[in-house]
Amino acid sequence: MAMTAAIIGGGVIGGGWLARFVLNGWNVRVFDPDLEAERKINGVLDQARHALPMLYETSLPVEGSVTYCSHIGETVTGVDWIQESVPERLDVKHAVIADIQAHAPEQAVLASSTSGFKPSELQQGSIFAQQIMVCHPFNPVYLLPLVEVVPSPKTSTQHLKVATHLLTSIGLSPLHVRKEIDAHIADRLLEAVWREGLWLINDDIATTKEIDDAIRFGFGLRWAQMGLFETYRIAGGEAGMAHFIAQFGPCLKWPWTKLMDVPELTNDLVQKISNQSNAQSGQHSIAELETKRNHNLVALLRALKQQGQAAGTIINAHEANLIDVPKLAVKLRSVHRTVPIDWTDYNGHMNEGRYGQVFSDAADRVLQSLGAGAEYVENGHSYFTVETNVKFLQETHAGEKIFVDTEILLAAGKKLKMRHVMRRARDEEVLNICEQFLLHVSLETRRSCDPVGSVAQNIVTLGKELG
Amino acid sequence: MAMTAAIIGGGVIGGGWLARFVLNGWNVRVFDPDLEAERKINGVLDQARHALPMLYETSLPVEGSVTYCSHIGETVTGVDWIQESVPERLDVKHAVIADIQAHAPEQAVLASSTSGFKPSELQQGSIFAQQIMVCHPFNPVYLLPLVEVVPSPKTSTQHLKVATHLLTSIGLSPLHVRKEIDAHIADRLLEAVWREGLWLINDDIATTKEIDDAIRFGFGLRWAQMGLFETYRIAGGEAGMAHFIAQFGPCLKWPWTKLMDVPELTNDLVQKISNQSNAQSGQHSIAELETKRNHNLVALLRALKQQGQAAGTIINAHEANLIDVPKLAVKLRSVHRTVPIDWTDYNGHMNEGRYGQVFSDAADRVLQSLGAGAEYVENGHSYFTVETNVKFLQETHAGEKIFVDTEILLAAGKKLKMRHVMRRARDEEVLNICEQFLLHVSLETRRSCDPVGSVAQNIVTLGKELG
Repeated sequence: MAMTAAIIGGGVIGGGWLARFVLNGWNVRVFDPDLEAERKINGVLDQARHALPMLYETSLPVEGSVTYCSHIGETVTGVDWIQESVPERLDVKHAVIADIQAHAPEQAVLASSTSGFKPSELQQGSIFAQQIMVCHPFNPVYLLPLVEVVPSPKTSTQHLKVATHLLTSIGLSPLHVRKEIDAHIADRLLEAVWREGLWLINDDIATTKEIDDAIRFGFGLRWAQMGLFETYRIAGGEAGMAHFIAQFGPCLKWPWTKLMDVPELTNDLVQKISNQSNAQSGQHSIAELETKRNHNLVALLRALKQQGQAAGTIINAHEANLIDVPKLAVKLRSVHRTVPIDWTDYNGHMNEGRYGQVFSDAADRVLQSLGAGAEYVENGHSYFTVETNVKFLQETHAGEKIFVDTEILLAAGKKLKMRHVMRRARDEEVLNICEQFLLHVSLETRRSCDPVGSVAQNIVTLGKELG
Repeated sequence: MAMTAAIIGGGVIGGGWLARFVLNGWNVRVFDPDLEAERKINGVLDQARHALPMLYETSLPVEGSVTYCSHIGETVTGVDWIQESVPERLDVKHAVIADIQAHAPEQAVLASSTSGFKPSELQQGSIFAQQIMVCHPFNPVYLLPLVEVVPSPKTSTQHLKVATHLLTSIGLSPLHVRKEIDAHIADRLLEAVWREGLWLINDDIATTKEIDDAIRFGFGLRWAQMGLFETYRIAGGEAGMAHFIAQFGPCLKWPWTKLMDVPELTNDLVQKISNQSNAQSGQHSIAELETKRNHNLVALLRALKQQGQAAGTIINAHEANLIDVPKLAVKLRSVHRTVPIDWTDYNGHMNEGRYGQVFSDAADRVLQSLGAGAEYVENGHSYFTVETNVKFLQETHAGEKIFVDTEILLAAGKKLKMRHVMRRARDEEVLNICEQFLLHVSLETRRSCDPVGSVAQNIVTLGKELG
């Protein structure tokens, strides 16, 4: 049977929760006194409907329903989960919680999205403290997996267990915050950076853009996959985490920032960090961690490169300087490259789809030689592949250098046929042969048509050469 | 003509610089008195040789040479670039710089990797301050694009210009730090988080692993693509950055951290931040930024998912709960999914290689129905695709729901042939038809052989049904 969640407060965060529940098949009941709530929630829901299903290689469950309610009692009756995301004022939260608990089932989890309050503060004066905890998500809630789950000593173990299970079932990664603390864990770190950023702007050291670039072209990429301590464990090398702190710890006493209070690096603290780091990553050697980090960075950078965004723009610009436009010819070397780590599958070799990518790239080089490159596409024409035949002769692995020789077999009017032979660079062994048939198209009508301008002339030239 | 760099100090950072230069075709001369220097540098170089070429869809230039020198004079004579990465002690740096400048060409850039010293400090007592600046990179230097370039007022404009050009030419993104400051920009932010992390551990709030998870499952993913301020610009919504600060600024006065000194949020400071943010991102509406952020997050999360790392493990676990193992049958619905944003190409539609990915996934479902899934592969057998014929009938776009119906055409001994018909879910229009021929293989010999156990039985069952 479908589960039901009550969403109390439907702003950016409440709307994000709603979207994650609904797209995972939950029915949702919403209360938000804002007259614009439905419009705003639909905005968030549209963004989530577009983005979240793209994460998976399979369909998400059938969408749940969304019901707008006119008061809290109606919203929370009979639900399995209540998510409170009202403004960050304790008196408001207390009033809302009282209203919720007058109608909600005791077995339901009553979770607050608060970043500012501790669960014990929320529980003050409540009639059933056991069901109350903080479940603090990160924007956009429908995409980012982190949720900080903070119980107080009064929160029941059973409710905590149910919360962990249900959050996991909608694709979130619950981080159990074992000790109540203002701002939980992540916002403490965010707040530290925010403060330091404000000082940098205040003192005219850097602009908002310069600070963002300093993050997203550098340590932001490291943090997307390893966080802070595992990254530093690698920097410390085989000597380990205690060595790293001994080496870099003293920098904390340098006059680097406006904010100077630092915990004393006693032997006990150094040992504590070292032990925790060993428990976290000690099963891997530094070289293994380095390889893992590098593979993750390659995959992240390639993802941004494919999007033409952030650090990917830098790699694209560099790559453009490495590629010459090929000359018109019946035979040409169309691809020479390394097989990246994100192209392999569970058989340990390059996935068959990636051969298609290589041959698509090879065809692009031929099209550039014909004058049908980016500018031609911008002017409304292109070539689309209509049929391929691919013979897989040998396996290919990540890290191998490969090249492709392409021969044009037919160039006549709108028709273009080529054969690509892909070889391993090391021994020139043939790995794969692809015959590819393309048609010239108008990008306006998305239908085939004869090429125009110098592309038409080049097709005639090639046709003559082919006899 | 190939350019030449001198690497003075070949640790993790110096070795990383060396690798980036060499793999971009520069010749490199190294000085490091450490007897282990060559072994350590080869370690870094091997990691870089494996990872860096994977970033590009084309080959990198032919590798430059590496020459080990026995003193600084020999190392720097006639070079175009000198990168100093010796230990962080000012007296050591001054001695090394004096030695370098006794032999180096004046037109060469003399760059220091220091994170701790300002360029004016390095220039104290130097005979040619004009060529000295800080070029502070981020580990791993051969993969991360950020380099902070910090001149002092004594650094010449010409040297700064050359440095910017040459750093860009080896794939780096120089961030010009306009005002000398201890720790430059990025390390100020890193130091703030490091301090806050130390407090969290010291106070037993969180372990190193919990802090890393709080980063890499949440804001680390945001920071890999947008940084801090553009992310908050979106959180502020259409009301803009000044509104965001007005709303969240007061939190800075809450007792959240051990470090409480905060710049006063005067109207001037709020306006400054708002103006800088407008200059940075004002050309995009919040909805546009949101879509861009979501596409980047989808691409980053999918990259980690493919690697089975960090946040990708959470998505994989969630996905495993969404998929049923199909039953053995001649015809089955083998794929139902959404086309993700990272599958489209410059023609605005799904790249031909990704059809291969879809059909590879479809075949995997058939193999699972045969009992030839993950466990079978682990036990040393699998199926490899040996030939495909693909007909591209209609275009497919990101965000569209698609499904594939697969029919087995031949199941006999080691031979397996199937036809996949891919349709758009909305109108069931046929987009693409693929015929795929697979052979059963031993993963030990990597050669074809008959299937074993229940897979062999299932092949017989299918064969009978096909008649």
